[in-house]
Amino acid sequence: MIQEDKMSSPRRIGIIGSTGYVGMELVRLLSAHPEFRLTRLVSRSYKDQLFSDVYPGFRKTADIPLTASDPDDLAQACDFVITALPHGVSSEQVPVLLDKGLRVIDHSGDYRYRSLQDYQKAYKLVHPSSHLLNEAVYGLPEIYRQQISMARLVANPGCYPTCSLLALMPVLKYNLVEKENIIIDAVSGVSGAGRKADLDFSYCETESSFKAYGVVGHRHTSEIEQEASLMAGSSGRVKLTFTPHLAPMKRGMLATVYARLKPGVDEKAIQQAFSSLYDDEYFIRQLPAGQVPETRHVTYTNFCDLAWALDSSTGMLKILSAIDNLGKGAAAQAVQALNCMAGLPEAMGLAGSGGSV
Amino acid sequence: MIQEDKMSSPRRIGIIGSTGYVGMELVRLLSAHPEFRLTRLVSRSYKDQLFSDVYPGFRKTADIPLTASDPDDLAQACDFVITALPHGVSSEQVPVLLDKGLRVIDHSGDYRYRSLQDYQKAYKLVHPSSHLLNEAVYGLPEIYRQQISMARLVANPGCYPTCSLLALMPVLKYNLVEKENIIIDAVSGVSGAGRKADLDFSYCETESSFKAYGVVGHRHTSEIEQEASLMAGSSGRVKLTFTPHLAPMKRGMLATVYARLKPGVDEKAIQQAFSSLYDDEYFIRQLPAGQVPETRHVTYTNFCDLAWALDSSTGMLKILSAIDNLGKGAAAQAVQALNCMAGLPEAMGLAGSGGSV
Amino acid sequence: MIQEDKMSSPRRIGIIGSTGYVGMELVRLLSAHPEFRLTRLVSRSYKDQLFSDVYPGFRKTADIPLTASDPDDLAQACDFVITALPHGVSSEQVPVLLDKGLRVIDHSGDYRYRSLQDYQKAYKLVHPSSHLLNEAVYGLPEIYRQQISMARLVANPGCYPTCSLLALMPVLKYNLVEKENIIIDAVSGVSGAGRKADLDFSYCETESSFKAYGVVGHRHTSEIEQEASLMAGSSGRVKLTFTPHLAPMKRGMLATVYARLKPGVDEKAIQQAFSSLYDDEYFIRQLPAGQVPETRHVTYTNFCDLAWALDSSTGMLKILSAIDNLGKGAAAQAVQALNCMAGLPEAMGLAGSGGSV
Amino acid sequence: MIQEDKMSSPRRIGIIGSTGYVGMELVRLLSAHPEFRLTRLVSRSYKDQLFSDVYPGFRKTADIPLTASDPDDLAQACDFVITALPHGVSSEQVPVLLDKGLRVIDHSGDYRYRSLQDYQKAYKLVHPSSHLLNEAVYGLPEIYRQQISMARLVANPGCYPTCSLLALMPVLKYNLVEKENIIIDAVSGVSGAGRKADLDFSYCETESSFKAYGVVGHRHTSEIEQEASLMAGSSGRVKLTFTPHLAPMKRGMLATVYARLKPGVDEKAIQQAFSSLYDDEYFIRQLPAGQVPETRHVTYTNFCDLAWALDSSTGMLKILSAIDNLGKGAAAQAVQALNCMAGLPEAMGLAGSGGSV
Repeated sequence: MIQEDKMSSPRRIGIIGSTGYVGMELVRLLSAHPEFRLTRLVSRSYKDQLFSDVYPGFRKTADIPLTASDPDDLAQACDFVITALPHGVSSEQVPVLLDKGLRVIDHSGDYRYRSLQDYQKAYKLVHPSSHLLNEAVYGLPEIYRQQISMARLVANPGCYPTCSLLALMPVLKYNLVEKENIIIDAVSGVSGAGRKADLDFSYCETESSFKAYGVVGHRHTSEIEQEASLMAGSSGRVKLTFTPHLAPMKRGMLATVYARLKPGVDEKAIQQAFSSLYDDEYFIRQLPAGQVPETRHVTYTNFCDLAWALDSSTGMLKILSAIDNLGKGAAAQAVQALNCMAGLPEAMGLAGSGGSV
Repeated sequence: MIQEDKMSSPRRIGIIGSTGYVGMELVRLLSAHPEFRLTRLVSRSYKDQLFSDVYPGFRKTADIPLTASDPDDLAQACDFVITALPHGVSSEQVPVLLDKGLRVIDHSGDYRYRSLQDYQKAYKLVHPSSHLLNEAVYGLPEIYRQQISMARLVANPGCYPTCSLLALMPVLKYNLVEKENIIIDAVSGVSGAGRKADLDFSYCETESSFKAYGVVGHRHTSEIEQEASLMAGSSGRVKLTFTPHLAPMKRGMLATVYARLKPGVDEKAIQQAFSSLYDDEYFIRQLPAGQVPETRHVTYTNFCDLAWALDSSTGMLKILSAIDNLGKGAAAQAVQALNCMAGLPEAMGLAGSGGSV
Repeated sequence: MIQEDKMSSPRRIGIIGSTGYVGMELVRLLSAHPEFRLTRLVSRSYKDQLFSDVYPGFRKTADIPLTASDPDDLAQACDFVITALPHGVSSEQVPVLLDKGLRVIDHSGDYRYRSLQDYQKAYKLVHPSSHLLNEAVYGLPEIYRQQISMARLVANPGCYPTCSLLALMPVLKYNLVEKENIIIDAVSGVSGAGRKADLDFSYCETESSFKAYGVVGHRHTSEIEQEASLMAGSSGRVKLTFTPHLAPMKRGMLATVYARLKPGVDEKAIQQAFSSLYDDEYFIRQLPAGQVPETRHVTYTNFCDLAWALDSSTGMLKILSAIDNLGKGAAAQAVQALNCMAGLPEAMGLAGSGGSV
Repeated sequence: MIQEDKMSSPRRIGIIGSTGYVGMELVRLLSAHPEFRLTRLVSRSYKDQLFSDVYPGFRKTADIPLTASDPDDLAQACDFVITALPHGVSSEQVPVLLDKGLRVIDHSGDYRYRSLQDYQKAYKLVHPSSHLLNEAVYGLPEIYRQQISMARLVANPGCYPTCSLLALMPVLKYNLVEKENIIIDAVSGVSGAGRKADLDFSYCETESSFKAYGVVGHRHTSEIEQEASLMAGSSGRVKLTFTPHLAPMKRGMLATVYARLKPGVDEKAIQQAFSSLYDDEYFIRQLPAGQVPETRHVTYTNFCDLAWALDSSTGMLKILSAIDNLGKGAAAQAVQALNCMAGLPEAMGLAGSGGSV
């Protein structure tokens, strides 16, 4: 809002698809960010209204006009553009933005895959800009920080993949678990389904109920497998079983990951793997022994809370990982990547405490 | 309330521990049951008040005096007694009730185990009446209907075990899955923690949050293993991995069960196993293909909604099972058992529809 | 489901508009009622499906086919029809049903008014069957029990009017309060808005929030004024101020009613007025002094919980009234009226206890 | 955490009673404030732990040690102290802090009253430091901005009084409504009851329910009357009727205020009164005609959303006012006052957008 004169040359940001929930969270974070300035909010559905007409909670903090999508205008007014568009729409609009010289962070699944076949299998869509798959960087800073900082195009990871991969990275990188029997049982808050009029997500059909969905073949499975396999390296491709669930809460995501320890691996090795990778990661909070992540502690933040426990009677390792699906699972992670791209400290503008109450 | 003259000789029921949530649900069901009459409600904490003083929702429907526990009085006034007492308390009080000639359904863990060692390992308690472990019948009518009908002492199963075992029974009985890699990821509503003043279950610390708890070594693991192994029969003892979670809702339980198919087993075999065991079970609702259980559809009922899906890319079978933790997971199941014991139709007094809205 | 042979000649009931929330609640109650049989469920949107396809919580308890609306078929198959149709639709369909010889309970606003002008002012609709306004009986059994029992057409009251009028009746009938300054501040659960895909009632836009709506000129104002004025009798027409609110819960309604005592009226007179009218009313629960109604205690019931308190420093009387908006505020009250019409005990099939947990 | 070197001489803040919900919200706001530094967090219950041990959502953002209360230590380490203590405890501890030269903002009711008798009547407590009642400034910056800036002792207003007084101020200051018939019907989220183990505020007894409480004689009545009478000035003391309610949500407060217009007052006069007082107030958001405040739009902020409507059929004015009970109703308002006291812009550190989703 009152960002005009915060500094001499703040980076100028545009958001396309700004009135969905991911867009809203981006506006929340970026309107309060000390080094970015929101110069364009694009919305097809609400153009010519103010952002705060759509989200009255942002009156006085983001009374920003919503505009139609116009690549030339965006190129003139912005340094970076964040797209929060449906799958299949990004793949058409993003190349145009790149051609105009903009750097882009995209929230769809369109640029997350290394292999066109994997994308097509998961999304059943033709890809009009598959030449960019090679260039796009998977936007998980805890893995690809270096590449993100120099990228033209960052593919912001899915929420379930973020939550799952941060849980799995230590044990896959250090080769501590079997690759064939990994199970990810995960739960999301309702905002993960997006902003829409849909009886299935109406209050009366959602409140006080719990269910699985997308029980077989959820798209995020192959996205997790791709990155998990890269983590595992030469030791072989990861195949995993993934089940998403819906819990009656607006925000929050928990993954309970099951992996079988390799012979000879003990708790100390697990501890060292987590410590080695995460002790210096600000947004990873490794919980003390005996504590478990609760989604309320990460809502409205970019934190990922992690804990693990070994079930000695079965040799099964359980890793618990909690994020805010709109935070580290979407908008806050995009801001973290944006900080990288802009050469700013990664935590800038992301210092808030967890929701709690 | 208007139970006095429903029939010439209704069975007379007493409940010990009637003011906890399981007790409340028993009163709800039994005060409306056509063939039972609540003649004693025992409550240590609230004696000399009315049940409806403690639960004002029951004014006019259960204005029943709460009394102190007195075995002689119970023996005189009741035909059956249901105990909803803490573990370690039941094991002291139940033998006294049996000695007075009463038939008992117990809700604690004290009589669920066949092996004293398993009980002691799970509950860390001395068992003053372990001679009854042999006699007690595990109160899952879908397995032990016959024995329940003649039992003096029925051990009502735990909520997680009920939900999990009904999911697993077909594939274990028909030997369709490997016994070593079973994972049960389950979720309960908050009423499972009981009625108590506890900051951890206060509204502000519970609402809008999701977490795991008892991550390693939850007591219900060994209870499930015991009954699952009996189902599996000669094919070997079942070892399983179990993780309970807490969701922000009052009632409801969902288990997502993962088991690896044995070589050569196909979907048709799975279908036949479920069909063979459950087509005639009124309280098991097998969902049509493509549908998933939602906890809201079973709240306030004795139903267990079941669905399964085969993940062909990993050979993993997923079975989804939903119950009401206070219904089929506790009080309604006890009423089902009570119907068996009394020679009544199993569904009598349990014909209500699911909560839905 | 298993209703066929419950008795020799059960009354046969049809429901038009059976798949909305009021319809669902009617099916819940009537499918378990000992003396009624659901013979027709009419649904335009879901015809040829089963009711339990739309509400999976009713699998096995109401696997009843949904049919198109056909007055001849209804006349042949039913003794009574309950219509849960939008305002302006009932006024077209109800006369046809009456002409076929059916007795009807209607849930819309179309027959609640004595005056056509009041109806037109509140609903801005032409009324094609206004000749029935005179015949229709306002379906609040606590007032019009006698007329309901003989009625061809019963207009089931609105939820807010039911909740408010039961609070006001004693003090208006006994002329204890001023008629000009009555204020009704009331709150409803979300199911009051009906079953529909609407962003305003989506989970994410509704959960954890509270607001007023229809702040000026809500239709129920004039409905309450009509009946309140009749209660007040010769002492003058009641004008009142009414504000409805929406609370984040599925069911439940609370009215906080403010009225100024007439000079000389004391607490004893108030107590006597309530006692005189309500001591024999089964569905009115007058709370002991110091207790307040909570909506959870009346959910899933036909009860209205009432309490009052006198603010001696201002002379203002506060009356608190809680109902389930789908229960006493809609479907359960219709069943109560149906019992009257059929010559059955009013509480038959309505004996359940409050939701509580 | 990263507060050390934010600026050369940040103001140093201590909080006593830091682990209640108001304390938590103060830590959230002040740990992110650019010009304040949290140097002491006092907690009797949790001393020697970290704040983030009690609130794990604050790991890495507020790993601040909790200390015992020691006035000398506070005087040495702090410039300002905020007390979030129970009524009757503040009145003993605050004088000691003032004597040590500290400036204090107190959250209890102990210094909100101008008259000792009013305090004693409302709180039934002896007041050991009643000499401070004269000096203490009522901490509503929209009224007492000037006095707050110079105060040694600020009494932070109650949540209901803040919400109600901001609604009433324009019509009382401009003498537009009758003073005798004001009714305030208000609703709070559950966090207003504080952080405690209490069955009445347990999840299962609170979720999905709505009720009134403190129906007659709630303490905030007299606090509102005091300030409302001062607003009304010579035109006479305000007597009002106030009823608080509890809604199933963690945060948020809505007041629906009813006042009868004086003869001759029209909508334009009302509009001018609001506009005149509030157009320049950053934290007051006057909604466009036809919109109503929703609590979700103000959660996690210091905003008060206001709307009003005239019921022309009764001459009753309705004013709707929404705040976050922990925000503008407690901690955020204290930070606003603290900014005043420190000579900083009032909105500093309070620029966040409303919760929304």
